[in-house]
Amino acid sequence: MSSNNRRQRREQAEAFINNVTGQSYPNSQKIYVQGTLHDIQVGMREVTQSDSLVGGGKDNPVFEPNEPICVYDTSGPYSDDTININVHQGLPQLRKAWLDQRDDSEFIGSVSSNFSQQRLADEGLDHIRFEHLPKIRQAQSGQNVSQMHYARQGIITPEMEYVAIRENMKLADVKDELLKHQHPGNSFGASIPKEITAEFVRQEIACGRAVLPANINHPEVEPMIIGRNFLIKVNANIGNSAVSSSIEEEVEKLLWSTKWGADTVMDLSTGRYIHETREWIIRNSPVPIGTVPIYQALEKVNGIAEDLTWEIFRDTLIEQAEQGVDYFTIHAGVLLRYVPMTAKRLTGIVSRGGAIMAKWCLAHHQENFLYTHFEEICQIMKTYDVSFSLGDGLRPGSIADANDEAQFSELRTLGELTQIAWQHDVQVMVEGPGHVPLHMVKENMEEQLEHCHEAPFYTLGPLTTDIAPGYDHITSGIGAANIGWYGCAMLCYVTPKEHLGLPNKDDVKEGLMTYKIAAHAGDLAKGHPGAQVRDNALSKARFEFRWHDQFNLGLDPERALQYHDETLPQESGKVAHFCSMCGPKFCSMKITQEVRDYAANLESDAIEIKVLDSLDKIIQSGESAHSEPAYSAEQGMQAKSAEFKELGSELYHSATQQPETDKVD
Amino acid sequence: MSSNNRRQRREQAEAFINNVTGQSYPNSQKIYVQGTLHDIQVGMREVTQSDSLVGGGKDNPVFEPNEPICVYDTSGPYSDDTININVHQGLPQLRKAWLDQRDDSEFIGSVSSNFSQQRLADEGLDHIRFEHLPKIRQAQSGQNVSQMHYARQGIITPEMEYVAIRENMKLADVKDELLKHQHPGNSFGASIPKEITAEFVRQEIACGRAVLPANINHPEVEPMIIGRNFLIKVNANIGNSAVSSSIEEEVEKLLWSTKWGADTVMDLSTGRYIHETREWIIRNSPVPIGTVPIYQALEKVNGIAEDLTWEIFRDTLIEQAEQGVDYFTIHAGVLLRYVPMTAKRLTGIVSRGGAIMAKWCLAHHQENFLYTHFEEICQIMKTYDVSFSLGDGLRPGSIADANDEAQFSELRTLGELTQIAWQHDVQVMVEGPGHVPLHMVKENMEEQLEHCHEAPFYTLGPLTTDIAPGYDHITSGIGAANIGWYGCAMLCYVTPKEHLGLPNKDDVKEGLMTYKIAAHAGDLAKGHPGAQVRDNALSKARFEFRWHDQFNLGLDPERALQYHDETLPQESGKVAHFCSMCGPKFCSMKITQEVRDYAANLESDAIEIKVLDSLDKIIQSGESAHSEPAYSAEQGMQAKSAEFKELGSELYHSATQQPETDKVD
Repeated sequence: MSSNNRRQRREQAEAFINNVTGQSYPNSQKIYVQGTLHDIQVGMREVTQSDSLVGGGKDNPVFEPNEPICVYDTSGPYSDDTININVHQGLPQLRKAWLDQRDDSEFIGSVSSNFSQQRLADEGLDHIRFEHLPKIRQAQSGQNVSQMHYARQGIITPEMEYVAIRENMKLADVKDELLKHQHPGNSFGASIPKEITAEFVRQEIACGRAVLPANINHPEVEPMIIGRNFLIKVNANIGNSAVSSSIEEEVEKLLWSTKWGADTVMDLSTGRYIHETREWIIRNSPVPIGTVPIYQALEKVNGIAEDLTWEIFRDTLIEQAEQGVDYFTIHAGVLLRYVPMTAKRLTGIVSRGGAIMAKWCLAHHQENFLYTHFEEICQIMKTYDVSFSLGDGLRPGSIADANDEAQFSELRTLGELTQIAWQHDVQVMVEGPGHVPLHMVKENMEEQLEHCHEAPFYTLGPLTTDIAPGYDHITSGIGAANIGWYGCAMLCYVTPKEHLGLPNKDDVKEGLMTYKIAAHAGDLAKGHPGAQVRDNALSKARFEFRWHDQFNLGLDPERALQYHDETLPQESGKVAHFCSMCGPKFCSMKITQEVRDYAANLESDAIEIKVLDSLDKIIQSGESAHSEPAYSAEQGMQAKSAEFKELGSELYHSATQQPETDKVD
Repeated sequence: MSSNNRRQRREQAEAFINNVTGQSYPNSQKIYVQGTLHDIQVGMREVTQSDSLVGGGKDNPVFEPNEPICVYDTSGPYSDDTININVHQGLPQLRKAWLDQRDDSEFIGSVSSNFSQQRLADEGLDHIRFEHLPKIRQAQSGQNVSQMHYARQGIITPEMEYVAIRENMKLADVKDELLKHQHPGNSFGASIPKEITAEFVRQEIACGRAVLPANINHPEVEPMIIGRNFLIKVNANIGNSAVSSSIEEEVEKLLWSTKWGADTVMDLSTGRYIHETREWIIRNSPVPIGTVPIYQALEKVNGIAEDLTWEIFRDTLIEQAEQGVDYFTIHAGVLLRYVPMTAKRLTGIVSRGGAIMAKWCLAHHQENFLYTHFEEICQIMKTYDVSFSLGDGLRPGSIADANDEAQFSELRTLGELTQIAWQHDVQVMVEGPGHVPLHMVKENMEEQLEHCHEAPFYTLGPLTTDIAPGYDHITSGIGAANIGWYGCAMLCYVTPKEHLGLPNKDDVKEGLMTYKIAAHAGDLAKGHPGAQVRDNALSKARFEFRWHDQFNLGLDPERALQYHDETLPQESGKVAHFCSMCGPKFCSMKITQEVRDYAANLESDAIEIKVLDSLDKIIQSGESAHSEPAYSAEQGMQAKSAEFKELGSELYHSATQQPETDKVD
């Protein structure tokens, strides 16, 4: 890329992040649900709908209102038009009072890590530094500030109540029985309650089945939960590399990710200003931020894996924990003895962290220092409540290498490490593959459940084939939906650029949309209570030709509207009872509406039902319509026929009689 | 759309279809495999690969060749640079000699259907008519020209041998054992042989488990097969509507579809010049063409469903059969008694054909005339070898309506009709849904297998959620991959424009790529022999940084290259041992390559392995490296450490030492 292009791209990003207030969605508003145990306000998005036309004639149409639909919202304050946001200041500190009240953490004078101190002292960094850094917290001596620790003591924190309310999405308030209708799911043994209570959240965190990633140095985060018995979550990876991208662009990608549904964001930057980029990201993030600290540690030793030491890594953990990173990917399961297992693979080791640690192990002929120092890492984690995401450094990088000895050996080690972390009351999730053919996906979930003691599983895809570079959001979205259904708690997105380049804004959105679909398809299949409300509401809107409602209830109202506009740009097309696919005469939904009205009419008319029954019997027995009871059937048919024709012609609604309320503001 | 835009779009389409020769793929060539039973040449695409760098130093690199990879090719003569194609003349008649030799069909003087005669007589249509219409064939009196009829008589037709060779994709010729490695699949009781023989094809067609759609009036078609024991196929829907699109655009979409992998194409046109559009499509199509004749029949009665008659429909069947349509969707399972079952649905009837027939049934209070005249339809089908695609007029249009009484009642009727068609030796496939949550997809396949006697299943998606208008290629691609795995024989694509508008070229491609992925993911999961060769070859290329090979082996070489170019446009980036995602220092694959060379070295060195074993035991037992056998282990570690560092620095290949052979010509 030319420096001109680079500058232009950076300027675009800067413009975007300097104008972030009120990124609301069409016909939506931010609402807040008040807690009962704690004084908390849980943000959600409410989509307003237009009325349904239910009867009457051209001159006296009868309408019925449709209740607003609540949808899970990851965009935080950015979609609240009443909050003025300045990315140079960072987000409001939602959790500050909660942290203060717990009185088990303390502010420290300055950063503890050597590296952070050096960066602070470097005046050359002043122009890119985040100016308004908050004071740094750590646990008071002897205290453990992890949500798991509280949960195990029977304490329901504000964070726990927050996620309970958030997960329910006001399901109890849905009035329309039609909207509440849902197929029973098949959850493969998960234990999803009909309503998520704060106590249930506490129990799930206490037993390790769920993770609530919330570093005490990330007071801006809106609490969320990752676990098999909750809504399936989606992670978006962002981050620059030595080759491309700037701080402004990464912050832009963060905001963009949360707008389009990222439940957590991982900053995988490997380029120069990692430390400063991360400050900007965390201070502006309403969602938990994850990192892979070994990337930065490797930067510190100039990319020479052999030169990594525990001391450098430890300093990096503290540096990042004090910045507020909510979870760390730690590749502590890449044991020396597993490395030769990858030698005969088609694609060896494909995890960056895995490859780095394998190289270190072989170069030194020593055991992985992340494994040998694991308990010391736990000490750091509980000082700030950073959650583990135990990295799968030996995940398969191709269909050929799926579910092999190296992969499952590491998984069992991750299971052992999970139990060690839990001894410290440190929260854990476990990372999974990768590239796995569809029929071998389930085994991954089963092995993980068994060997990792139900700690939440967090997978990358998996990609179900290798043959589609440029479309790996789709190859992996298929695997992701399946493993989500089987019990995977969080799906790490894959963008169309996977294997080819660094994702841009469009790629981030495309990856997220694919993974929101995969997660939701999984929720429906598991039978997560209330998951079907949005499908039902959207389909009802579709069936009733409430076009704007259909768009606005969808994952991407902008694209739906844009696609519709391509063939029917006029506003009249948005109230037309047909679309450009079939044209006005052939619309099956319009015809169906007529059939439906007719059949409804039938039901209320006992004699006519009898006629239809008689007809059925005639047809079933293979007799002609002239057999007994010929008279009634024939008469009935003629009457019905006339009635239907009349009814049908009445029900061609003209566009003009539709209400104006479904216009986008 | 403005008339200016319309004209521009039409002109673009015209330019495209007037320059169709040599639409070949990068580094690919068309090859032909000779039949043994018949004198036939089966076209395939062979992707040439560059050499692998396997050793040596900077100055004396050692290379090993990679064999070319055969991929299934639906693009017909269009991707053969040696064939000059003129869309105004149509494609060469591949099957003409075969049809002549069978001597059971005859040419008729002119078109038989009333409608075709009227169109021919209408001089106003001369300017859009296809000029070089071939002579029309029909079965000689008393003859049945269906592939099923031949199969049941023990005859292996050239068509059958063609598909046998085509399905194998030269698997037997693959030399590299690494490429042939494949995971055993889980096919849920399918009977997929290791090699597809012509006799196997015959048996599968004879018993109805597979369909070979090939109208005797479509001699241009390259035979293909649809069945559970063959590669999963993909259909693309094209077709204009009253609102949009021209003949040129539809022909363009046809060619575009076959270029990007459509195994069959359905022309769902509903606009004015349906008849003429179809001529152009069939004469230029190397893939089977399907239609829904009721759409055109409805046009003939000005869109008034009640005015449809068996006579008009029959005339339409003959009209289209004589044009060469290979399969007809017939909604003969929409029985009068099933219609009221849809009244309480959230989205009623969403199949156009289903809604039309339901409306007709109710208006007349008579049984569906497609059902009552089914045997007469069979007579027409076997006169031209048109295959049935029994339409699912009552498929669910929303998650809420999935797998309901209406849907499964119709399915059972389709099973009865299948058996009637088979009594006439007429080929049948059965259409399926629609909108189905992931956990309810399998039931569809099971019900279909049971009630439709293993006739091939052909589903639209299914969409696994309703909440993503604009992304329904993805919501449905997930369901399609799963149902393909479970045994569905053909997947009807869904484009991003589904529910919103008529797909354009980009949408067609996006839909097809998604469905090629779904089909291939299904093939891998079923364990279809040889399915993994392409994955293995691509992953090997990826691992060896043969960028162009990786792109060219993918489903969409153009997009892969374009995405890579976005961050590394220089040609040196295409031989670089890293990509823009991780930058040069952090590439896990590069590091892995080093680990792998090292481990390979280890294995050839018995003493070193012993050292590693000892080390393993030390680590496993929790002892320190200083325990017994401390000396050998310590010494070994130091030696290995030094050796590795040396080896590692040697293996950073510079871009300049890569061969030039992997450049795109």
